[in-house]
Amino acid sequence: MEEANNTKNGVNVNLLLDTIEAIKNDSNIAKFQFRAETEWVNGGHCRTEFKNFYGANVEDTSRKQAIVLEGDEPAVLLGNDHGANAVEAVLHALASCLSVGFVYNAAARGISVESLTFCLEGNLDLHAFLGLSETTRPGYENIRVKYRIKADAPEEQLEELCAYVQKTSPVLDIIRNPVSVTIEME
Amino acid sequence: MEEANNTKNGVNVNLLLDTIEAIKNDSNIAKFQFRAETEWVNGGHCRTEFKNFYGANVEDTSRKQAIVLEGDEPAVLLGNDHGANAVEAVLHALASCLSVGFVYNAAARGISVESLTFCLEGNLDLHAFLGLSETTRPGYENIRVKYRIKADAPEEQLEELCAYVQKTSPVLDIIRNPVSVTIEME
Repeated sequence: MEEANNTKNGVNVNLLLDTIEAIKNDSNIAKFQFRAETEWVNGGHCRTEFKNFYGANVEDTSRKQAIVLEGDEPAVLLGNDHGANAVEAVLHALASCLSVGFVYNAAARGISVESLTFCLEGNLDLHAFLGLSETTRPGYENIRVKYRIKADAPEEQLEELCAYVQKTSPVLDIIRNPVSVTIEME
Repeated sequence: MEEANNTKNGVNVNLLLDTIEAIKNDSNIAKFQFRAETEWVNGGHCRTEFKNFYGANVEDTSRKQAIVLEGDEPAVLLGNDHGANAVEAVLHALASCLSVGFVYNAAARGISVESLTFCLEGNLDLHAFLGLSETTRPGYENIRVKYRIKADAPEEQLEELCAYVQKTSPVLDIIRNPVSVTIEME
C-alpha cells in the first residue's frame, strides 16, 4: 500500500522531492515564520496556542483549529503538573525535531524505519533562576540523547544518517548555537 | 483567601522563600535532572512522555501519571497536525519559562499579576534542513517576543522585573547561549 503512492515511513516521498525541487527554483518557498500565543493561567500554569504561520510564499491557514500545549511545574517547583515544565518542553522539541529529521531523511534515502525512540536527560542547577548565583548558568549544563532505531539499513548507514540529521536539525542548532531573542513590552 | 496562606499569583510564597533558604544551606538541593522519552509514531508524528525526574536530593516520583506532548508537522511540511512542530514547541518552551519567571518573581516581590500574555514569532529558512545550503543555519534566525502584563506595579518596576527574568530564565539561556548536546545510538 505504502509503495503505491510512494509513501515511506508515513512520508510522501514524491511531495518531499517536489518541495526540494520547488525551493531550488524559488528560494523564497523555504522562508517560514512560526508563531505562538501564550497566556498565563495561574501559578506555574500557562497555555500556548498555535494556528497560522507563514511559509511557501503564503499565509498558511490550513489548520482548522488551534493546537494547544500546556506548561506547568511539578509540586516541588510549586506547580500542579498541568503540563510538562519549560525545560522539559525543550527536550520534547529536540526529540521531535530529531525524529522528523531521521524519518524524513530515511524516507528520501529509501530506508524503511520500523521503530525509533529517544531517551533524553538534561542537568540544570536552579541557583541562577532563584537569584542565588551570578556564575551558574540558568539553563541546561548539558543534554544527553540516546536513541534506538530499527530500520532496513546497516548500522554504518544509520550512523551516517544520524550525523546528517545532527548537521541539519533546526532545534539542535537552536540549542547548540546562539539565537538572537528580543523581548519587549507592548 | 490568597493572602491567608501567603499565596500570590497562585504561587505559595512561603514555600518559595523556604526553598531559597534551603538551597543556601545545601546547594545540592538546586541540582535537577529532567528527562523525556520520545517515540516516533508515523511520518512527522511523535509522542513524548515525562514522568520522574531528579531534584531536591531525591528521585521525584510524585507524578501519578506521565505527562504527554505530541509533535507533528503541518500539511505543507508533510505532516498531519497531530501536534505543534518542533520549532513551534521551542516557542512554547520559551514563553512557558518566561511566564514562570515573571509570575514567581512578581510573587516574591509582592506584585499581584492580573494577566500576562506573550506573542512569539521566529523566522526559519528550510534550506539547511533540506540539505540545500551549507551556509544558511538550520534553526531560527531570530525570535521576537512581545508581552503584555497587567499588575499592581508601575511600568518601571515591571521593566526591571522583565530584565531580571531575562537574566535568570533557563530556556532563554538555552536559546541565547550554546548548550552541549551529545547524541548516541544505543
